[in-house]
Amino acid sequence: MKAEFRATMPALVSVFFLLVVSCTTDVFALKWNLFRHKVPGPLDFEISYKTYYFDQKIDHFGFLEDGTFKQRYLVAAQHWQKDGGPILFYTGNEGDIAWFCNNTGFMWDVAEELGAMLVFAEHRYYGESMPFGAESYSDAKHLNYLSSEQALADFAVLIKCLKASWPGAQTSAVIAVGGSYGGMLAAWFRMKYPHVVAGALAASAPIWQFPDMVPCGVFYKIVSDDFARSGVNCNANIRGSWNAIDKLSSTDEGLQWLSREFSLCAPLTKGDGLKSWLQETWVNLAMVDYPYKANFLQPLPAWPIKVVCQHLQFSPEVSERQLLHGIAQAAKVYYNYTGDASCLNISQSATGNLGMMGWFYQACTEMVMPMCSDGVQDMFEPQEWNFQAFSDECYAMFGVRPRADWAEVVYGGKDITSYSNIIFSNGGLDPWSGGGVTRNLSDSLVAVWIPDGAHHLDLRYNNEYDPRSVLDARLQEVTIIKQWIKQSAAQGKV
Amino acid sequence: MKAEFRATMPALVSVFFLLVVSCTTDVFALKWNLFRHKVPGPLDFEISYKTYYFDQKIDHFGFLEDGTFKQRYLVAAQHWQKDGGPILFYTGNEGDIAWFCNNTGFMWDVAEELGAMLVFAEHRYYGESMPFGAESYSDAKHLNYLSSEQALADFAVLIKCLKASWPGAQTSAVIAVGGSYGGMLAAWFRMKYPHVVAGALAASAPIWQFPDMVPCGVFYKIVSDDFARSGVNCNANIRGSWNAIDKLSSTDEGLQWLSREFSLCAPLTKGDGLKSWLQETWVNLAMVDYPYKANFLQPLPAWPIKVVCQHLQFSPEVSERQLLHGIAQAAKVYYNYTGDASCLNISQSATGNLGMMGWFYQACTEMVMPMCSDGVQDMFEPQEWNFQAFSDECYAMFGVRPRADWAEVVYGGKDITSYSNIIFSNGGLDPWSGGGVTRNLSDSLVAVWIPDGAHHLDLRYNNEYDPRSVLDARLQEVTIIKQWIKQSAAQGKV
Repeated sequence: MKAEFRATMPALVSVFFLLVVSCTTDVFALKWNLFRHKVPGPLDFEISYKTYYFDQKIDHFGFLEDGTFKQRYLVAAQHWQKDGGPILFYTGNEGDIAWFCNNTGFMWDVAEELGAMLVFAEHRYYGESMPFGAESYSDAKHLNYLSSEQALADFAVLIKCLKASWPGAQTSAVIAVGGSYGGMLAAWFRMKYPHVVAGALAASAPIWQFPDMVPCGVFYKIVSDDFARSGVNCNANIRGSWNAIDKLSSTDEGLQWLSREFSLCAPLTKGDGLKSWLQETWVNLAMVDYPYKANFLQPLPAWPIKVVCQHLQFSPEVSERQLLHGIAQAAKVYYNYTGDASCLNISQSATGNLGMMGWFYQACTEMVMPMCSDGVQDMFEPQEWNFQAFSDECYAMFGVRPRADWAEVVYGGKDITSYSNIIFSNGGLDPWSGGGVTRNLSDSLVAVWIPDGAHHLDLRYNNEYDPRSVLDARLQEVTIIKQWIKQSAAQGKV
Repeated sequence: MKAEFRATMPALVSVFFLLVVSCTTDVFALKWNLFRHKVPGPLDFEISYKTYYFDQKIDHFGFLEDGTFKQRYLVAAQHWQKDGGPILFYTGNEGDIAWFCNNTGFMWDVAEELGAMLVFAEHRYYGESMPFGAESYSDAKHLNYLSSEQALADFAVLIKCLKASWPGAQTSAVIAVGGSYGGMLAAWFRMKYPHVVAGALAASAPIWQFPDMVPCGVFYKIVSDDFARSGVNCNANIRGSWNAIDKLSSTDEGLQWLSREFSLCAPLTKGDGLKSWLQETWVNLAMVDYPYKANFLQPLPAWPIKVVCQHLQFSPEVSERQLLHGIAQAAKVYYNYTGDASCLNISQSATGNLGMMGWFYQACTEMVMPMCSDGVQDMFEPQEWNFQAFSDECYAMFGVRPRADWAEVVYGGKDITSYSNIIFSNGGLDPWSGGGVTRNLSDSLVAVWIPDGAHHLDLRYNNEYDPRSVLDARLQEVTIIKQWIKQSAAQGKV
């Protein structure tokens, strides 16, 4: 989630022909846009989709604000069986939908087999789908319509319109697909709108990373475990680095040394920024610890944590400077794998695009996800979860306060067995799996566990280096999706 | 629905001790308030409840408006089995909750058998639960939080709080109960919050009285059929009355005659007001055509339509004045059964309390319920359903426009088989049954049909004059509710 904002669009998918149409326009009159999607290895897909814009209500839950905005969505219908073939509907999350479209190879891989139309719907307030244009993020008043409930309503309204306007789609089963926050949305979409979607594939969706549902330390513990298993002393050396940074950053000379060692673009003035930047780096690495060369958040080698840990194999007994030399080398795996970066910018790691601000706002309102670390079970500095301090920060930043209980009230928390037809897939390497559903809750609330999977690996393209576990997972997912489609067709005939 | 606003509180239930508390207050420290509920016949119940006020968020779906208001709710726990006995939760509709509390005898009748706590939650913007006090209805800005979605969220938040604060309630199954719009809310509550309520008894809930779900003429046809079956020529004479009123009201003398004949408090200046007042009178009679003397909307005799029709048995060949003399006598059954009224006020029949304005607003936003008449299948003047004209009226009145499709998008319309555990009960005499669910949709979406029942007769107290069909209906309802409670307990043990 948090780290997904730094969407670096593949160069080949950077220019496209925009179509501003209502979903009732004759979509068949429009041209396809072709893009080549490159993945490492022998596979080389050509993906094509059309871009549309739908006039969506700004406020579904009130009638005073009656304005609309252009919600972007992408459609690929080349494999769609027009006599009721299903629709795989990506419930867009906190970023540019074209980026999710290009990083959800699973849908492209299964489209032909399922005879499915692919739709990727952008989440309001992200990418190009701005309710108030450039003003959308200007203040709490304009941000007031950024919520998961509004996003789900967008999806439901859009699907109604799609079904009415694509001849043959009226009886199409719709399957929601999403990863990370998009996976939460997919699950919640099925829960709240089962009359719209026959089922949901919720990949790496931490729907339980909310107050009092899982221990707040689980996330950082999984990150740490990933490093512990990827190289001797790796975890321990990172744990030791925080004090080392504190010590060195207590003198000007030490700060200068750190700035040089980390090849920073701007000289360090204190150590805190470096520490939080590194903390986020390790977290991001845990999310994208894929078994092959990939470019999700950054261009990275296969199993990047192993590569990182090669720089951290030394004994924890080394000097602080030796330790931090290793840490710097490790960080550069993440930030300069290509060798193109002339310096590293620690203010760029986690911010710098609108999507980030949107997620901060969501975290400051309904997406209250407690996180903590203790430095014992994990490799991070001890930090308690302090809701009041968090709430005060939110108020200072946005003028709103989070509602810690709301997500549980509206989405059921751990008590969701009365819902149906959701696959919750999780990867054992993914820190978000700690807040995910990792055991079957009922016959139709199915957990899929991918021991050597990072963040929604199953949603990525098939790859020759995929571990067996993710191939099995995808097979199981497709089998269940086929059952839902069949079920939906049977219900339609009643 | 529409007609339910004229809540005439029984005199004995007019004074009570108000308690302003959070639901986390020690509720056991408070005194009971005792009321005697009188019903006709040998039965004479004493009902008692406590009144509470809960600090409810004004806006559940946005964070800019962070204020709260006092939501009223009533609790009767005298029969509650504290070791997890169920909670019957009345999802309050468009009026004073004390009035619904007193008119939902079913809950009082079954409380002991089920060991149930009774909770009656007031709907925001009705009764005493005003989000902005006296300003609540002042303009579209203040009315912006009046919606079914906000009301359902109120119920969910309140139940979470009740379960946390009543020792022993944590494991209590909650069953939603409601009639009319309250029945729609009960059904939708189960649909949207199945983790909060184990099931819903939705009595006389016209969840399909929305665009393109049922023919718009079905409502007035059922009203007319009630009159047709209640007396010779009854229906035909009412059908003939509209022209007769037009003719007589075309002269001053005629208007004067009509004013005298109908004992109007203020002299008529044209005929239209009289016609719409009569139309609503016949509709209200159809809703409350109960088999015993009752006081729901007005004090009325048993089978009031039969009594009305006794005044309309003559041949349609009579003169206009003879016809309208009969009509006036018939109307007086409804407005002056007690003989206490010195004159009839045609402006009072459908307006005059805040609840009416609230329902108008809801009809002008999401509760778009098309109605039409043709004068052939029904006894009313032909009137088409004209959405645009309706929308324009709404805009003139409130500055908002209705969204005809929204209810279907959010609540599923006729495609609701993916939901579960709802009883839809309907009465054959009730005009709202035309928009109700009157056949089983699945094993757990069960239709209960009461051929000789008017508007949610099953939710009323047991009465010695109850027809067999309603006794059977209540028995079936209680049997199913017991199954839900059992099911819920079994799930809780997983």
